[in-house]
Amino acid sequence: MPGEKFSVTPYEVKGQIDYDRLRVLFGTQDLTDELRQELARLAGAPLPPLLSRGVYYSHRDLSQILSAIAGKKPFFLYSGRGPSGPMHTAHLAPFELCRWFQERFGASMYVQITDDEKFWLRPQYTREATQQWGLENLLDILAVGFDPKRTRVFFDTRSIATMYSLAVDVAKRIPYSTVKAVFGFPTSTNIGLVFYTALQSVPCFYPSWRTGQPIPCLIPCGIDQDPHFRVTRDVAEPLGYPKPSLIHSQILPGLLGGKMSSSGQEKDNALYLNDRPEEATRKLRNAFTGGRATVEEQRRLGATPEICSVWALWRSKFARDEEEFQQVTADCRSGAMLCGECKAKLTERVLPFLSEHAARREAVRPIAESLILEAAPGSTGPSGGPPIPAP
Amino acid sequence: MPGEKFSVTPYEVKGQIDYDRLRVLFGTQDLTDELRQELARLAGAPLPPLLSRGVYYSHRDLSQILSAIAGKKPFFLYSGRGPSGPMHTAHLAPFELCRWFQERFGASMYVQITDDEKFWLRPQYTREATQQWGLENLLDILAVGFDPKRTRVFFDTRSIATMYSLAVDVAKRIPYSTVKAVFGFPTSTNIGLVFYTALQSVPCFYPSWRTGQPIPCLIPCGIDQDPHFRVTRDVAEPLGYPKPSLIHSQILPGLLGGKMSSSGQEKDNALYLNDRPEEATRKLRNAFTGGRATVEEQRRLGATPEICSVWALWRSKFARDEEEFQQVTADCRSGAMLCGECKAKLTERVLPFLSEHAARREAVRPIAESLILEAAPGSTGPSGGPPIPAP
Repeated sequence: MPGEKFSVTPYEVKGQIDYDRLRVLFGTQDLTDELRQELARLAGAPLPPLLSRGVYYSHRDLSQILSAIAGKKPFFLYSGRGPSGPMHTAHLAPFELCRWFQERFGASMYVQITDDEKFWLRPQYTREATQQWGLENLLDILAVGFDPKRTRVFFDTRSIATMYSLAVDVAKRIPYSTVKAVFGFPTSTNIGLVFYTALQSVPCFYPSWRTGQPIPCLIPCGIDQDPHFRVTRDVAEPLGYPKPSLIHSQILPGLLGGKMSSSGQEKDNALYLNDRPEEATRKLRNAFTGGRATVEEQRRLGATPEICSVWALWRSKFARDEEEFQQVTADCRSGAMLCGECKAKLTERVLPFLSEHAARREAVRPIAESLILEAAPGSTGPSGGPPIPAP
Repeated sequence: MPGEKFSVTPYEVKGQIDYDRLRVLFGTQDLTDELRQELARLAGAPLPPLLSRGVYYSHRDLSQILSAIAGKKPFFLYSGRGPSGPMHTAHLAPFELCRWFQERFGASMYVQITDDEKFWLRPQYTREATQQWGLENLLDILAVGFDPKRTRVFFDTRSIATMYSLAVDVAKRIPYSTVKAVFGFPTSTNIGLVFYTALQSVPCFYPSWRTGQPIPCLIPCGIDQDPHFRVTRDVAEPLGYPKPSLIHSQILPGLLGGKMSSSGQEKDNALYLNDRPEEATRKLRNAFTGGRATVEEQRRLGATPEICSVWALWRSKFARDEEEFQQVTADCRSGAMLCGECKAKLTERVLPFLSEHAARREAVRPIAESLILEAAPGSTGPSGGPPIPAP
């Protein structure tokens, strides 16, 4: 709620977030209706729900990407995943948005699997586990439906030969004091995590570095990840690369209220992509809603969709079209549809999605390895690296 | 001089060093006559000048290596070079000592070329230049005469795929506060240099990691480099590897007095391996000595070898045998040999050394690249890496 205390860093989200205030605090721009309309016009198609319904609500330099599209110049997409466990539906959101941009504009897509970062982040994680989860998570990401010809993967511990020279350039430009200030790290933070932001900048510059041409990057991410890329944007120009553009989403609420968790500690707080049908059904049945204390009261006063985790799922992903979304919202607000009925309807959408996702996941398994960038011996410079998709 | 102020870190040496006090400050052990005799006995040969004449004067856990030798167990050698310019004769000292250990005991040798570290260290260095100097310096190092079958090279920016997984393990164990305390870095230090000590630990653990067996490491290095390996030694046991053993040398004096410099700013302070004969001759003629103000005084009172840069060269490298070294020292101290004569005699040793070194350097050029560890794609684990020499 406005006025309440909250804090947001890439490593921790606390309190009830006031998104407009956060946008001002972070110094990002409003994703206005005007910008949305311009994007829809350039796409020649309606915007996807994540954009049209305000889940993505903030940006940095989106106009750079709109100009590239309008001028038929190349740009590329980048999103990543820190692998420490199974992914849930909210994790797919930036990738789904990337896929839409790739489909509409033919852009290249770079996925980063940050298994080193996750390993450094928590004492209990092992390198073997983060690498194994990295492969599992990559299948979930690719199942979103990217064009393999235009998609490549930086898998940090496996792609390091491709990434390191550029990371070395970036690291030289970032003083420890910046990392300390931006991420709020205590001095007990390990030196891997201190270094890590250099590696997170690599995909943002890689196509420009490889081709010697300035190719802008668009990064859809949760607003909590913005600090990483603030550092990237600061070093971009001194290194001779375009600053990456960002579009930021609100943090999708968990089924129990707060942010969805992927730590495995709060399995009931999120809809995991590998949940069995009965688990998913049970979680949705128990999900936190904006409903009233009694049926009578809800019929009379209606419910509050804005605080409801079930409505958030309709909004971000499961409403088939705008008409259905408006209907669900209106029926919720009016009291025409009770929470039980709403949950049952959503479950009918979620279960087929999960089984279709599982099938797509198996379908991409044979090609996943081939998309991971792994440099051949001796190829350390821009000209000698592995193939990259045409921008 | 004892009592005077001095400070020694891997990145800066200031003041007149009191080596015994420095050993106590750093907490290292005295390289006693007893240890020297034991090593000579195990080698079945006299010690090389660097050991017999006290240039190497301190150690950590040398007994671990003596035990391995006595028990016919494997151990290996490791030394490195930060490439930012041409090498001088003092830079060769640890490598010459490594070669002696390899010859006498058949140990494997790992050379590390830290082109990333050097690039991070000074704003004016470029990545291209440090990489190019790395190749040049590698030829000088290999010209010392290592057995190619038992020698491999970590060239940081090129070997990173081989090194990174182990560096990631190490980095997790090192908090920023340790790096700050050990190296005295200000907060403006870039995050590359903060991370770097993790990479410097990799060769120390690599054979144990690859083979799954505890194989101890011996590192000859200047005492100023000890802090790097103090960090390495602290993380060794938690990671399940033997602590590396060290033997430390005094810092060889430059021709103008202080420490030899490789920055290229003080070319006359060191005898560079690529100096032309007339340059080397001129530098030696102008070198700082322990001589007296006048010939008469020197004939009468003698000179002081301990402060003389020319004597330091006889001592560390150029005296043909113990007899000649004792003779040179006695003739200096007694006043029987004047500085000009001493310098002329030394020049007759230095010039052939430089031309023979240049020839050996060309002889190793064809094999140098083949010794650099560069992982094949997909080989990130201990079992999938490149070949290493048998310990």
